[in-house]
Amino acid sequence: MYRERLTRVKQVCADNQVDSFFISNFYNILYLTGFKTLTTDEREAFVFVTKKNIYLFTDARYIYTNPGVTLKLIEPGKGLFFHLETIIKEEKISSMGIESEDLRIHEYEKLKNLFSFIKITQLERALIRLRAIKEDEEIQKIQKACEITDQCLEDIFPSISVGDTEKKLAFGIEQWIKKQGFDLAFDPIVAVDEHSAIPHYNTKEGNGEVKKSSVILIDFGVKYHDYMSDITRMVFINPTKEIITVYEELLSVQESTIEIVGKETDPKAIDTLCRTSLKKKELPDFPHSLGHGVGLEIHEYPKISKMSDDTILNNQVITVEPGVYFPEKWGMRVEDTVVIKNHKAESLTKFDKKLLILPI
Amino acid sequence: MYRERLTRVKQVCADNQVDSFFISNFYNILYLTGFKTLTTDEREAFVFVTKKNIYLFTDARYIYTNPGVTLKLIEPGKGLFFHLETIIKEEKISSMGIESEDLRIHEYEKLKNLFSFIKITQLERALIRLRAIKEDEEIQKIQKACEITDQCLEDIFPSISVGDTEKKLAFGIEQWIKKQGFDLAFDPIVAVDEHSAIPHYNTKEGNGEVKKSSVILIDFGVKYHDYMSDITRMVFINPTKEIITVYEELLSVQESTIEIVGKETDPKAIDTLCRTSLKKKELPDFPHSLGHGVGLEIHEYPKISKMSDDTILNNQVITVEPGVYFPEKWGMRVEDTVVIKNHKAESLTKFDKKLLILPI
Repeated sequence: MYRERLTRVKQVCADNQVDSFFISNFYNILYLTGFKTLTTDEREAFVFVTKKNIYLFTDARYIYTNPGVTLKLIEPGKGLFFHLETIIKEEKISSMGIESEDLRIHEYEKLKNLFSFIKITQLERALIRLRAIKEDEEIQKIQKACEITDQCLEDIFPSISVGDTEKKLAFGIEQWIKKQGFDLAFDPIVAVDEHSAIPHYNTKEGNGEVKKSSVILIDFGVKYHDYMSDITRMVFINPTKEIITVYEELLSVQESTIEIVGKETDPKAIDTLCRTSLKKKELPDFPHSLGHGVGLEIHEYPKISKMSDDTILNNQVITVEPGVYFPEKWGMRVEDTVVIKNHKAESLTKFDKKLLILPI
Repeated sequence: MYRERLTRVKQVCADNQVDSFFISNFYNILYLTGFKTLTTDEREAFVFVTKKNIYLFTDARYIYTNPGVTLKLIEPGKGLFFHLETIIKEEKISSMGIESEDLRIHEYEKLKNLFSFIKITQLERALIRLRAIKEDEEIQKIQKACEITDQCLEDIFPSISVGDTEKKLAFGIEQWIKKQGFDLAFDPIVAVDEHSAIPHYNTKEGNGEVKKSSVILIDFGVKYHDYMSDITRMVFINPTKEIITVYEELLSVQESTIEIVGKETDPKAIDTLCRTSLKKKELPDFPHSLGHGVGLEIHEYPKISKMSDDTILNNQVITVEPGVYFPEKWGMRVEDTVVIKNHKAESLTKFDKKLLILPI
């Protein structure tokens, strides 16, 4: 697995005419070496791919062995740049790709100053784009994450009661997932009534609760062996006719959008089709993208939006998540994680999307 | 609070002769405006401080109001750079500071290309350094986080039993904290026996369990209203005489190190003193820094290490956490979060450090 990934990275280097690639992104390091630091943003590890080797630089607080990867310990007097310089000289490296979407300016300046004798090329999102196409094993992990997500919803939703706070419901989801030994893909969003009209509602900071007549939006995901799922479902209590109609219209748009994903390979076209369908039903446009890739990160490539230059390809995993929001009243979103196979999108999240009205 | 912080940032601008400051770091944005995006690294918000105003750029998925901050919505056709350009022209801005430790190269390149007519100055860690000195309200929040941490340990440690897995104990800590309505500062580390010798042991990926004779390291923290605590304590079951002796020696070194923090203001000197004390007791050196600032992030300024150029000042909050590690056998660390007041360090984590042996 890692060997094949490394081969693809070496192809990226060849395509871009660089004979090495300095990798700083947490998830790209994990993807290439299986190594992860305790936090995603503390710059405790870097990877350097050369024609001959792949090096991992980290410090002695971590233990790591991988027969395919040469570990270089960062220690006092032998820092990252010491090791890089040694390797550059030993392997006679004359050019280096860097991740321009991840590398910080002060890191870049130091590289440029210390290694002014080599050519540095910005390879923007090169590895992130590789990661958009999933291997079978990756898809299986995401599928498993989706199965756990479905099961969590099955178990959780019947217990929703009037008076429950958003926080309590979100914590219930979290506890369910963690008791099974898995992790959250992200902090669950449980948004009731007017909060459901805020697409990025922060449940932890809010104070909503379920009422005798409520619109309840639940958006969460599971992390299974580092791979994520993402789902949004709506639950209603005593919904008005208008709410029911809007839900059914939104659902039909979401389902017909999934139908075209893969046959249509241009995310811009898919995004437009979806928004046009909503407009035809006289529903408002939603202030977020239609979807995004899912994998090691919850938001990956391809992006499904009107700004996207990506292409929908087989073995990508993406979300399809249109929404309808009436600010300060209520909002809805229906979201599935889907995999593209044979130019068709297949939902990996399978929790029933029929109108879900809780009896009280 | 925000107004005072803004005044300090404007002073940073004046000191560095820039008439604006473009801020991209999640925690610095939170510090200056109280606004936070759902994830720390998805670049969904930026802040721009000018002589006249402070602007927050984010999209309509978020709801935000703060009378002191001008919100500029990022929307199709009116992106970040559109807004920046408008402001730069309106306010006749001729120079801009950026956070070189945070800004990505591709963002920097775009700024440079679009605004080639203004001078861009790299202000490395300027805001992070401001954040090192805590306001009273910040210290109170950290203190509260520490109190919750102490209480969690009091409640959790008596229940540790032979056969408990590291994962179960870590989950117990997490559940305790979340049931109280608080959050983890970071994923708890529970490391038993040979795992306790790995300073950055990843409990989630491990499979250790408590035995009839065990060394148990517990390192965790609480997040209270965005502010963190950090503690490490050791629990023993049937410890050997050697283990007891090492613990008592380590503890005495940790306590005498805390004694000098604040009186001695050079982190390098404190670090050296601590390591020298361990050496005198014929204990091995530890492969990590002695401590770090704590606040909105778990690892902040000042850094307490032999490489640090910082100064220990009043109203800083730092950890003091020397360790002793015997690889593949066992290890120990004792860590407190302390605040510097009147050139003296006062422990905010107060859970007893006397030798803690569990009966079985």
